[in-house]
Amino acid sequence: MWKIQTPLKNINGKLFFANVSASKLASKFGTPLFVTDSERIISNYNNLYSAFSSHYDKFKINYAVKANNNLSVLKLFNSLGSGADCSCPEEIFLAKKIGFSSKDILYTGNYNSDDQLSYALKQKIMINVDSSSILPRLLKIGTPNTISFRINPGIGSGSHSVLVFGGKNTKFGMSKKDAVAAYRLAKKSGVKKFGIHMMTGSSILDSSYFKKATSKLIDIAVEIVEECKISLDFINIGGGFGIPYKPPEKPLDMKKVGSDIGKIFNGRKSSRILDKPWLYVEPGRYLVADSTILLTNVHSIKKGPINYVGIDAGMNTLLRPALYDAYHHVVNASRLNSRSNESVNICGQICENTDILAKNRKIGNVKEGDLLAILNVGAYGFSMSSQYNTRPRAAEVMINKKYSKIIRQRETINDLIKGQKVVTWFK
Amino acid sequence: MWKIQTPLKNINGKLFFANVSASKLASKFGTPLFVTDSERIISNYNNLYSAFSSHYDKFKINYAVKANNNLSVLKLFNSLGSGADCSCPEEIFLAKKIGFSSKDILYTGNYNSDDQLSYALKQKIMINVDSSSILPRLLKIGTPNTISFRINPGIGSGSHSVLVFGGKNTKFGMSKKDAVAAYRLAKKSGVKKFGIHMMTGSSILDSSYFKKATSKLIDIAVEIVEECKISLDFINIGGGFGIPYKPPEKPLDMKKVGSDIGKIFNGRKSSRILDKPWLYVEPGRYLVADSTILLTNVHSIKKGPINYVGIDAGMNTLLRPALYDAYHHVVNASRLNSRSNESVNICGQICENTDILAKNRKIGNVKEGDLLAILNVGAYGFSMSSQYNTRPRAAEVMINKKYSKIIRQRETINDLIKGQKVVTWFK
Repeated sequence: MWKIQTPLKNINGKLFFANVSASKLASKFGTPLFVTDSERIISNYNNLYSAFSSHYDKFKINYAVKANNNLSVLKLFNSLGSGADCSCPEEIFLAKKIGFSSKDILYTGNYNSDDQLSYALKQKIMINVDSSSILPRLLKIGTPNTISFRINPGIGSGSHSVLVFGGKNTKFGMSKKDAVAAYRLAKKSGVKKFGIHMMTGSSILDSSYFKKATSKLIDIAVEIVEECKISLDFINIGGGFGIPYKPPEKPLDMKKVGSDIGKIFNGRKSSRILDKPWLYVEPGRYLVADSTILLTNVHSIKKGPINYVGIDAGMNTLLRPALYDAYHHVVNASRLNSRSNESVNICGQICENTDILAKNRKIGNVKEGDLLAILNVGAYGFSMSSQYNTRPRAAEVMINKKYSKIIRQRETINDLIKGQKVVTWFK
Repeated sequence: MWKIQTPLKNINGKLFFANVSASKLASKFGTPLFVTDSERIISNYNNLYSAFSSHYDKFKINYAVKANNNLSVLKLFNSLGSGADCSCPEEIFLAKKIGFSSKDILYTGNYNSDDQLSYALKQKIMINVDSSSILPRLLKIGTPNTISFRINPGIGSGSHSVLVFGGKNTKFGMSKKDAVAAYRLAKKSGVKKFGIHMMTGSSILDSSYFKKATSKLIDIAVEIVEECKISLDFINIGGGFGIPYKPPEKPLDMKKVGSDIGKIFNGRKSSRILDKPWLYVEPGRYLVADSTILLTNVHSIKKGPINYVGIDAGMNTLLRPALYDAYHHVVNASRLNSRSNESVNICGQICENTDILAKNRKIGNVKEGDLLAILNVGAYGFSMSSQYNTRPRAAEVMINKKYSKIIRQRETINDLIKGQKVVTWFK
């Protein structure tokens, strides 16, 4: 059952991750500890790449930096030939710093300020515009060579209602009607090349959804091309590719997704009317979520009407369970072969009852001092962490079969008082 | 309606906070900006103090550091004579650093590790023990002079189900039965002085709740004293005092709470059986929530089926709306006198639909560039903020009628890459 995350091994009841002992990692680097297997990221990238490129060769992956902005993770994607999908100037800065060239960076922000638009323009980054009111402000600052607009196709899907980005009531994207006006204005203002974008959901495991959403986007793209008399350099179908978090979920059939979308892009509309555009995707979760586990120590166990296992990670370390009621599988890395019918809640040390990372789990005959591993935390794990309840943030380590290196040092109390100045007008 | 937070003034349609112009603060310090009025904290403290101490003189307030751990805020409470309620060794460290003496600090953690217990013991901090399994570990490390146990009285209340801390299924506290065994063990092990503690909820505006919960705690305390033959130096009734966030909520009748609880503490049980113990409270929200506003700039407005007003603060800056569906009142600081029937959603720039800070609000005829103020953000505001979507965290300023000083500098991108080392095993 814990094989829901692939690079794990059970050797005599102890957990190994990418052939490295979890307990050795914990004693070397301390807990709570995010451990990322670089090989897993590479294999995820290659799987996705081949699923699409074997059907359609003008294909490019743009890694969504927001999922995990660690510089080593960015460096890895850069080395794989990925592009970078950035949500803000700070992510553009990190991407450039690590070696991405401007042409390999997309900027998909929302509700951008003039300063943010100006920064992207200056850095010659392709701006994906989310709303009608942004374009006139952008054109006042300067005329980009290429521009893209984010379409809200009026449909959406997601594992949690707030992870639905499409549909008419969400904060993202523009209607076809608004987009037509925007493409016309951009063309008239001297923009030379165009793209189109959608991002309608997250964590989707149903392959047919992508076929449906892409068909809809292609239809909209054809209408826009015909109405505005432009050609589209690329069509960005976004991300939203899910991973199995909770048994018995099965992995998304990516070969089917690639084949379905390849067929749509090889079809008459794409080949003739759209003139065979580039196919872009911008996944985050699919590429990094299952590359990472969170190692955490059991501090204290409380027996009662509900049994609580208190660990050194909490909602401050991993927010997804508190925020989305997200499921993360938990294994007892110290005693994988232990079986017990006892169900426990696994909680952190934060002083509120939201701070429960997993409910009703069987993790063997758990004892104080055991090492637990929380699975699939590579996406929206560290990136959403905080210092709530005055807790320094966890360390991050990257491993492969050969190496294990610290990639982000554990914070200390000094990181929490940094930049503070104590007011002196009261004694 | 915006008078839901007291120190605000409307002068010719512009917002003033503690007599300082909001737009001047924004242009001087930038946005998003947390602005804390130190005078408001002082008056909240004095109100609470007099409400209780006029009925019962052995009364002490212990400010809950987790609500807002800014060093200037801690310094202010220290100067007022408050104690400090700390949830972890890091908060003890901050409290001591700013001037609290060990005797004025309480440590109420949960699921503590041996290291954490050892730190508190060494610093001679009174430890409030949350669970049976912790006591034997603590006694192995050393014998404290004073100890307290957190009782779960089996009842709870809160504005959001996760803000309920009491009730048999929560992660906090111990049953009376477990507590009796714990007091006996502690006494036998040489502990000299005892306290008792509960914390059953949060954000409670119904004054009768505190009377009910305190009566219950006193009944449990009497039973414990009689069964264990100990005396109680203090009874800590916790916090949970609410503030009005949403019209037409009314402030908690603190005079009634103080009078009700004073009566209970002056009653026969407290005076004779319990020998007139100290009465402790440990509020956070009540003391600081309405001391602070969050100033934020309108970047971009999108018209559609729902109108979205995009600002430079988001769920990264203020998590409570996304996490608890919490209501924070929002006013248009640039045009307080503007009236419009248009309802808007106010959202941040984070790339997910969770990032909506306020729904269905009327904030006048709002324009891009307007300055908004989000009210009552002094508790669990900055303290829960994160760098999600690669956003540097906001600055904090403290003001009073005379001064305005930066108390925490705005983060920069360098704060986000601090402590990172880039792995070199791939190019």
